[in-house]
Amino acid sequence: MSSSIPSEWLQQHFNLEEVGPAYHQLYRLICRAILEGKFPAGTRLPSSRDLAGDLGIARNTVLQVYGQLADEGYVRAGVGQGTYVEDISQDLVEPADEASDSSQEPDRRAPLAGTPHGLSRRGRNVMNHLGFSNRQTGAFMPGIPDVREFPLKVWSRIQNRQWRAGPWDLMRYAPAGGYGPLRQAISDYLGSARSVRSTARQVVMTTGIHQGIDVAARLLCDDGDVVWIEEPAYWGIRNLLSSSGLRVVPIRVDDEGICPGAAELAHPPRLIVVAPSHQYPLGMVMSLARRRMLLDYARQVSCWIIEDDYDSEFRYGNRPLPSLQGMDDADRVLYAGSFSKTLFPGLRVGFLVVPDVLANHFANAIAELYREGNMMSHSVLAEFIREGHFGAHIRRVRKRYAERRECLIEEIHRHFGSGLGIVGDRSGLHLVLALPEGVEDAMVVRDALDQKVITRPLSAYYLNRGHARPGLLLGYAGVTPEEIRPAFSALAGVLDHYL
Amino acid sequence: MSSSIPSEWLQQHFNLEEVGPAYHQLYRLICRAILEGKFPAGTRLPSSRDLAGDLGIARNTVLQVYGQLADEGYVRAGVGQGTYVEDISQDLVEPADEASDSSQEPDRRAPLAGTPHGLSRRGRNVMNHLGFSNRQTGAFMPGIPDVREFPLKVWSRIQNRQWRAGPWDLMRYAPAGGYGPLRQAISDYLGSARSVRSTARQVVMTTGIHQGIDVAARLLCDDGDVVWIEEPAYWGIRNLLSSSGLRVVPIRVDDEGICPGAAELAHPPRLIVVAPSHQYPLGMVMSLARRRMLLDYARQVSCWIIEDDYDSEFRYGNRPLPSLQGMDDADRVLYAGSFSKTLFPGLRVGFLVVPDVLANHFANAIAELYREGNMMSHSVLAEFIREGHFGAHIRRVRKRYAERRECLIEEIHRHFGSGLGIVGDRSGLHLVLALPEGVEDAMVVRDALDQKVITRPLSAYYLNRGHARPGLLLGYAGVTPEEIRPAFSALAGVLDHYL
Repeated sequence: MSSSIPSEWLQQHFNLEEVGPAYHQLYRLICRAILEGKFPAGTRLPSSRDLAGDLGIARNTVLQVYGQLADEGYVRAGVGQGTYVEDISQDLVEPADEASDSSQEPDRRAPLAGTPHGLSRRGRNVMNHLGFSNRQTGAFMPGIPDVREFPLKVWSRIQNRQWRAGPWDLMRYAPAGGYGPLRQAISDYLGSARSVRSTARQVVMTTGIHQGIDVAARLLCDDGDVVWIEEPAYWGIRNLLSSSGLRVVPIRVDDEGICPGAAELAHPPRLIVVAPSHQYPLGMVMSLARRRMLLDYARQVSCWIIEDDYDSEFRYGNRPLPSLQGMDDADRVLYAGSFSKTLFPGLRVGFLVVPDVLANHFANAIAELYREGNMMSHSVLAEFIREGHFGAHIRRVRKRYAERRECLIEEIHRHFGSGLGIVGDRSGLHLVLALPEGVEDAMVVRDALDQKVITRPLSAYYLNRGHARPGLLLGYAGVTPEEIRPAFSALAGVLDHYL
Repeated sequence: MSSSIPSEWLQQHFNLEEVGPAYHQLYRLICRAILEGKFPAGTRLPSSRDLAGDLGIARNTVLQVYGQLADEGYVRAGVGQGTYVEDISQDLVEPADEASDSSQEPDRRAPLAGTPHGLSRRGRNVMNHLGFSNRQTGAFMPGIPDVREFPLKVWSRIQNRQWRAGPWDLMRYAPAGGYGPLRQAISDYLGSARSVRSTARQVVMTTGIHQGIDVAARLLCDDGDVVWIEEPAYWGIRNLLSSSGLRVVPIRVDDEGICPGAAELAHPPRLIVVAPSHQYPLGMVMSLARRRMLLDYARQVSCWIIEDDYDSEFRYGNRPLPSLQGMDDADRVLYAGSFSKTLFPGLRVGFLVVPDVLANHFANAIAELYREGNMMSHSVLAEFIREGHFGAHIRRVRKRYAERRECLIEEIHRHFGSGLGIVGDRSGLHLVLALPEGVEDAMVVRDALDQKVITRPLSAYYLNRGHARPGLLLGYAGVTPEEIRPAFSALAGVLDHYL
């Protein structure tokens, strides 16, 4: 395509009389032309000087528009080599690692529309890095507890008792910080189970880890601030942090946990998000030495640490290390937890334990920004914990999940001996099956799905794909041994083609 | 205080050996000194040249730090006149218009800690503009429905029926977009009740107006983009939008609704948030002409409109205008609603109706960013709507609220004749009692609270206090006539001192 066609088309469609800055109009015109295929991939755009002359606008305006288009991936600009339209066809469909398992079933992630029509830069960025899946059952979906184990009858009984009394005050917006008796029950529980040091006022209710991280990003960080996350990490926090304006820097983990290098330490972040009890997805426990290093560093550079303790209740055999929060003498740690794994995900009850000096700020900000409620279930949960049902439930499912974990490990050994490594401590709801270097884990995942076996590629949890190691996340908590055995046999059949 | 004291103190405490940029250390040192009162208001800081020399760092670093401190209101810098510490004492307590009614009662907004310790600029900005109150009962708290009218028995019956069946799938995370049958029920209801044109896939579940606006800000706007809100407006969206990086521009309303001037129209925003059915808090309906103007403008400049239709169900006597969304042929309107006013606030169920081209983007983004659930109550609500209980409830409380409104208006006329104007259309959950120019409505509110009567000052809903008109928001929906009469007599006694 010659460079004159874009120029002519833009001259025809650009209207100097239009209300609003020329910048916006030109940007929209070129986007539209690219998205509608008028300027296909490889098209050379006119030079900024020529186009400015043709349209009668400032050259700087054209340069600004080209710069934004390049930032957003619509064009690439080589120095002294002109500006070319990029191949955007892959932005118009689902991200590659999800595309294959989304076509048939009605309950899958909603397919993206034909064009990222009208989305902002950060909106497109969210869309281009989706991590969630609608799929939540079946072997070996990771990160999912067995909801069928939940004692719904006990819960209903408490609920009916409370509702009969006319829970009018519980039907209003939640007060700042949340429902008081639940904050107290959580503070008591965390003190004994996790060595978290808190008063009830330091416990601030959230709807889960996402909201806890979001409010911390808004209150503790400004646009452009750096936040460290572990590499690899849970997909759910990257998009949240970056769409809140933060620069997410992945810091690799070694066997002892997050392991920043000298160059990284020299540029302190504003916030560090870690999962010291059970790194996600690799599953190691952060060593005591590493914990001390991290706390010292945070105190020295005055940054904040969010301790994501999402599934520390599920440990099989060994005693957990106390929480990072409990070791922190400098009030730098915010402890984040939820009941999504211990009770059921749809409950949407989580909490932050924040330093006392931040307690009222966080309580007020959550009431202001999110206008929460749901105190009817909060009051049931408070009673559920106080009456001992929570502890009993944990003990019961822990035993169940330990059996399922053992069953899965037996299957792995039966099929592969010690040929494939099992990564992670004896804890959590999943394990990682390491694959030899060079195996494309995403391909294995796709082929396994053809056999109705769900796994997640370890490589997808790395922000920097250059750091990625191949492996498969295998969730065992939500499936019985009777489901595990045939599913793993099918998976082993797929794996045999790659080993 | 002489200028040498800050310089000496900073020299003593500044440590060139410390890890991390000198910028951060110097910023923290000066902040701390100001917050701890070491540099009291009016203290002159050393010149950037002198301080740079004394500390052995670049002058530019000092200038940067002074610039940030000025941005954040810690210091003011006069050209050629030195840099002085500002009086920050008012940042250390609650915002003025709330301070008076928060001291005694345990359920009030949590008092802020002594210093904005460690908060980011945007975090401090949120704290300095809190609008919410924990108070949610009593005459004349606005914006609150009567939760005692909610048919909890009917709700419980549906819930128990569904739970007996073992609602395991409803206990998981919600799929993208939310629970399908509820989306369908809402689409059907809005089509007949509000002339909203949608298919079920365009209805995306949220937890309320706040989350709906937040996801739109993230997907449709970039940092620094301009968003128009009405002046005056609901307090809850300002903080949300500005802590999402947007520049909030208040646009005055006249009798026909939002009324941008020529200068404002010449700088198109990226997003406009309006409440055309019932402006909050003034209560007027946007005229048909203004609606057409707004839709034309949005199409011409390609900006988005969020239609906040939060309480359109409560109209007494006159037929509502159809929704703005129903008049929109260019797919620029996102319709936002919730069940907070029609059922009860703590339910936390809301929705967005988005143009079809955005439907999957919004569905996916909500699943990704917020990881929602709560399908157990969503399925009860879907059934509650389908079985006609929702419509019946609205009809019943509408009659009740109309009586309460009449009662309040009678009381106003009995005490003041036509001396005080009643602002707003015949709709909603509150009315505004206009006060004569010059009356300080915040003072009236404070004195009324001493008599145990809750009102809100109209002036507090203006972003630009220069635009503010004095008045009182009086909520009537949550109080019976027996409560209204003595409360208004007490309020009238207070008002008599000001008129």
